[in-house]
Amino acid sequence: MEIPKKMLAAQLVARGQIEVREVDVPVPGPGEVLIRVEACGICGTDVTIRDHGMPGEPPMPFTMGHEYAGVVVQLGPTVDEFKVGDRVASEVHKGCGRCHNCIMGNYTACLNFGKLEKGHSASGMTTNGGFAQYAIKHVNTLYKMPDEISFEEAAIITTAGSAFYAIDAVGGYLAGDTVAIIGPGPIGLALAQAAKALGADKVILTGTRKSRLELGKKMGADYTVNVREGEDPVKLVKELTGGIGADVVFDAAGVGSSLDDALNLVRPGGAIVLVAFYHGPVTVDINKAVVRNVNLYTVRGEGRRNVRRSLSMAAQRKIDLRPLITHEFPLKDINKAFDTFTQRIDNAMKVIVHPQR
Amino acid sequence: MEIPKKMLAAQLVARGQIEVREVDVPVPGPGEVLIRVEACGICGTDVTIRDHGMPGEPPMPFTMGHEYAGVVVQLGPTVDEFKVGDRVASEVHKGCGRCHNCIMGNYTACLNFGKLEKGHSASGMTTNGGFAQYAIKHVNTLYKMPDEISFEEAAIITTAGSAFYAIDAVGGYLAGDTVAIIGPGPIGLALAQAAKALGADKVILTGTRKSRLELGKKMGADYTVNVREGEDPVKLVKELTGGIGADVVFDAAGVGSSLDDALNLVRPGGAIVLVAFYHGPVTVDINKAVVRNVNLYTVRGEGRRNVRRSLSMAAQRKIDLRPLITHEFPLKDINKAFDTFTQRIDNAMKVIVHPQR
Amino acid sequence: MEIPKKMLAAQLVARGQIEVREVDVPVPGPGEVLIRVEACGICGTDVTIRDHGMPGEPPMPFTMGHEYAGVVVQLGPTVDEFKVGDRVASEVHKGCGRCHNCIMGNYTACLNFGKLEKGHSASGMTTNGGFAQYAIKHVNTLYKMPDEISFEEAAIITTAGSAFYAIDAVGGYLAGDTVAIIGPGPIGLALAQAAKALGADKVILTGTRKSRLELGKKMGADYTVNVREGEDPVKLVKELTGGIGADVVFDAAGVGSSLDDALNLVRPGGAIVLVAFYHGPVTVDINKAVVRNVNLYTVRGEGRRNVRRSLSMAAQRKIDLRPLITHEFPLKDINKAFDTFTQRIDNAMKVIVHPQR
Amino acid sequence: MEIPKKMLAAQLVARGQIEVREVDVPVPGPGEVLIRVEACGICGTDVTIRDHGMPGEPPMPFTMGHEYAGVVVQLGPTVDEFKVGDRVASEVHKGCGRCHNCIMGNYTACLNFGKLEKGHSASGMTTNGGFAQYAIKHVNTLYKMPDEISFEEAAIITTAGSAFYAIDAVGGYLAGDTVAIIGPGPIGLALAQAAKALGADKVILTGTRKSRLELGKKMGADYTVNVREGEDPVKLVKELTGGIGADVVFDAAGVGSSLDDALNLVRPGGAIVLVAFYHGPVTVDINKAVVRNVNLYTVRGEGRRNVRRSLSMAAQRKIDLRPLITHEFPLKDINKAFDTFTQRIDNAMKVIVHPQR
Repeated sequence: MEIPKKMLAAQLVARGQIEVREVDVPVPGPGEVLIRVEACGICGTDVTIRDHGMPGEPPMPFTMGHEYAGVVVQLGPTVDEFKVGDRVASEVHKGCGRCHNCIMGNYTACLNFGKLEKGHSASGMTTNGGFAQYAIKHVNTLYKMPDEISFEEAAIITTAGSAFYAIDAVGGYLAGDTVAIIGPGPIGLALAQAAKALGADKVILTGTRKSRLELGKKMGADYTVNVREGEDPVKLVKELTGGIGADVVFDAAGVGSSLDDALNLVRPGGAIVLVAFYHGPVTVDINKAVVRNVNLYTVRGEGRRNVRRSLSMAAQRKIDLRPLITHEFPLKDINKAFDTFTQRIDNAMKVIVHPQR
Repeated sequence: MEIPKKMLAAQLVARGQIEVREVDVPVPGPGEVLIRVEACGICGTDVTIRDHGMPGEPPMPFTMGHEYAGVVVQLGPTVDEFKVGDRVASEVHKGCGRCHNCIMGNYTACLNFGKLEKGHSASGMTTNGGFAQYAIKHVNTLYKMPDEISFEEAAIITTAGSAFYAIDAVGGYLAGDTVAIIGPGPIGLALAQAAKALGADKVILTGTRKSRLELGKKMGADYTVNVREGEDPVKLVKELTGGIGADVVFDAAGVGSSLDDALNLVRPGGAIVLVAFYHGPVTVDINKAVVRNVNLYTVRGEGRRNVRRSLSMAAQRKIDLRPLITHEFPLKDINKAFDTFTQRIDNAMKVIVHPQR
Repeated sequence: MEIPKKMLAAQLVARGQIEVREVDVPVPGPGEVLIRVEACGICGTDVTIRDHGMPGEPPMPFTMGHEYAGVVVQLGPTVDEFKVGDRVASEVHKGCGRCHNCIMGNYTACLNFGKLEKGHSASGMTTNGGFAQYAIKHVNTLYKMPDEISFEEAAIITTAGSAFYAIDAVGGYLAGDTVAIIGPGPIGLALAQAAKALGADKVILTGTRKSRLELGKKMGADYTVNVREGEDPVKLVKELTGGIGADVVFDAAGVGSSLDDALNLVRPGGAIVLVAFYHGPVTVDINKAVVRNVNLYTVRGEGRRNVRRSLSMAAQRKIDLRPLITHEFPLKDINKAFDTFTQRIDNAMKVIVHPQR
Repeated sequence: MEIPKKMLAAQLVARGQIEVREVDVPVPGPGEVLIRVEACGICGTDVTIRDHGMPGEPPMPFTMGHEYAGVVVQLGPTVDEFKVGDRVASEVHKGCGRCHNCIMGNYTACLNFGKLEKGHSASGMTTNGGFAQYAIKHVNTLYKMPDEISFEEAAIITTAGSAFYAIDAVGGYLAGDTVAIIGPGPIGLALAQAAKALGADKVILTGTRKSRLELGKKMGADYTVNVREGEDPVKLVKELTGGIGADVVFDAAGVGSSLDDALNLVRPGGAIVLVAFYHGPVTVDINKAVVRNVNLYTVRGEGRRNVRRSLSMAAQRKIDLRPLITHEFPLKDINKAFDTFTQRIDNAMKVIVHPQR
């Protein structure tokens, strides 16, 4: 496959400022491949990086974009896991492979986060990412795409990967369970879908926006609760469970009251998974966890190879992320794509950028 | 609900001899309910009990039948978990609740098996069971039936319960995994269905009978292998997994070679679940487990409340046991029902007895 | 063994008021034994019950006391687990044995808490307890005492049982780990001892009272930190761990800042166990758990048969609770015993009442 | 630290033939360090490699030796985990870090075993090892030695590492448990010591050689059983456990009957760990596992960073491997060292080679 020397990349050139520039096509090192990027999603974290930066960020200019899929066009030394022409989906985090957490398989908690020289990388966060015609990825972060799915779906597979990782954190076995999900953002919606796909008996999704909750119904929620309209999720869950509570509650909102809500929704002996970042300290009646023997689990990103599960489930059409994709733009319109996402123009949810268009 | 004093029950009156007799309707004790039995399945274990007996068996005459469903007609003292009129499915094992294993939640390994006075009971094995118009069950062994399913399906729900328990033993999270199942009997078929329902990427079912393997395809197997016709499951699994092997292998055959086959099918670091009884010592190259870091798990029956999961999955039509049901008989034809089962007349698989007909 | 008809019992006769009265000796039911109580400890929960009551409490007058040991003097029906003359230690909680949590082995989260008719009991809380010459206990809550230990030690074995249960919650395997414990009360001190006995590499105990911290050093803490004197536990733990943090942190304080402290002490990917009741909502920067992939576990009491582990460890002298016992009183001085405990007279920690003296 | 250009190494020059030769001192690559080897143990696997070879072996001549400790003398690029002068112990296996098993933390089941180019190495097996004055190790396989222990102890720390890994496989929490160990070789003896150090209530060690069993008593076994002298371990274990069986059984023998013995020793619901290689197929009544709900776990080598635990336990003197060391030789006497080991001269158990003497 012929590879050009130069390519276009949407680079962060100053805080808050992204420009499409011509840059060198990178060369894959040992264990790495070069990918021709076909689709790259915009995530809330991209906006944070653009406007505020994050720990481990390389010096500007650099290329953001951590949700992407494409075609392998060149193999670095030692790579035989993939071949040129393979369609591949990616996950963000490559652990260093040498700290305690990575060696034990907990690579999303890598102790060398941001240290490229130690082997860690988070594509689009601590190294150049996918808002470019070509990108480098390590084989540890790549998965062959099943034939059944498109590059657009594959680009946002980490959304499902985060959902399945959150489910993994509580044992992965939701068949027959009652599941409550707080927050109908992309990950909350993916959780509804994933939980239902794994056989959850009842999935209750709570939120404040009607359009999102309606989408939730389409994506697997058996019940939705609009708290802004005064509906009471605790009352509903108690009714549905004979007064006991939900087996598992996912907090995909991360707002001031959501952890307290989770504690009110969960049954004694049940589990809560925190699958959102909180934007400040919260006040919580944590004793409800203690007296009711409730454990709180956390996940960050799409760890423990749950992208593998996600791709299989998408290929089987047990999950389907396509309803999350609301807008698509060519690379040159990257800033319009960001605006659409941040201003939620036309109810934008996931916005896809196409570097080859 | 009016309850008669007398009822018909198919009793084991001598080794190998079952007769329908009129007996007293039993009265439920504390924690127990009386059920009007609507359907009761015949299982291989019933044949063993009839012809050879088993440990913990009560003195004859007694009523066999451990796979049944019906309607609650009377509540024993303290029962508020159910109400008269509830349609209920059952599981076999009630642990004693006071040995180390029961207190720790491992009630199918109860250390007081067969000791009624200690609280253990296995309906139809160590106490009177379900080949009767009425039967007693403890609330611990009962689950409300979802409206969506029939008594016939509910009667054999322990078949699915055993499958889900076997999956539970290896963590319950099969989404994206490659699963091999040896032995297309009822539990093997239920495993194929359950694994696929939970999102297994590829389900490979191996056996020797063409009709069963064809049924397996209908019930979720992506691939079937007829070893009698010289097909090679190891070759197939290696091809499907890039030479690595299956993530999980279920041995639902329990024959001389099946454990060795399982060791050849599983990947390094994978798991094997033994979900069949073996009828004698087997010779096995167990070093294949050691050098490849493969664990062997065992399950017995339908433990850890996996009947709860099964009923939900059946109500959602993610599993469907109805294809397993090949024959139905009224109670008076109990011996014809057993003959049909043991002689596999018309490819009999699960045979249901109807005590109310 | 001759059993009298009447006995002395220290009964709660009105809120805040305990009196020693003559009452009938109770008779054990099925699965129960009668114990001659030799020693019964006072716990903070006793004070709460005396002064404020708790959910599930029986009508007054009733006998409190949930930390006791004694000798079996009479067997109820079906009991063969013990024989008359056995020295026995006890745990508090008997689960109902019929709710989801109990059947699954999680009996300290029994869904029928306080419902005697369903089978739950918490001796001294929801039924008569051990501040009496004789008491009834179910076999599920009893363990034979090793010859090596005394009734006084056995009486407070639930203190160790709670510590081992808290360790159980995070996998039970502390050999080589760095462990931080917040709060040098009886359970915090027992945790220090238990963690060290299991091979923890470094045990850091933080608190505010010098005498307790000194006792902590005797009981296994490698390092103590007096936060009242301005010592900084986070700085110490970081120094000891190359800047990474403790593998496991136990919050045995349950005060406003302790959960935040725990989040600052723990390493990425580590675990926190909440092993204290909190007395109101806390404000916490829970995002520290999310971004660092820290799970929060809870335990309540001495579940999952960790009293069994505790007795063995005490018999082996790998743990030794005797330093916790500061005062002993005969039953008639029960109120003096309570005063000593509540007012911390002479640095009182665990106060033992002797019903036979 | 001055590093010479040349060094002495005991190399395998032909099948069965080891010679001490002068070779180049190697240079550490990225993530690697150069170690001055102070002590290197002989293991049964070394004899197998010398005489028969093993998969992944490099072309001869190469340097064997996989149990060694020494001093860091040179850092490869990117290494800051250690500094020159650090005393270090090692483990054998470095996983490739890029296969499914390694990414998930199961590096002893690496799917790229023997493929150096992919990142896997097993020092002394697939690359040059420790029977040399200097050796290269990757930081993933190194641990700082506590001051309290000697190079000789550290050299054989993988023996304890294998024991702790085997304990890890069953949850790591042996306090209060009854443990049976079959086979008093180095790993069986280390298991006895480790189990006791973790608080096992009773440790029963079975074997055929009196001297080894006596050593077992010194190293932690509460009971020893000499099956060659007709003693019956099953009878003993049943007596000690009220007829129930051992909670955990370790098969550290790997002979024809040992797995069947393990199945007879273990309690219903208990666990067996296979921690030895078997030298051929075994015949086993595997149904005993099924009907009694016994799981069989396997471990290979010293995985999941259990060397870390082992070093801490040795520094705390909770374990002490020194009694296993029976002989020490300078490097030039390597063949005498091997003969002593293989012929069990003077009851040789662990034989240490000193490359600097």
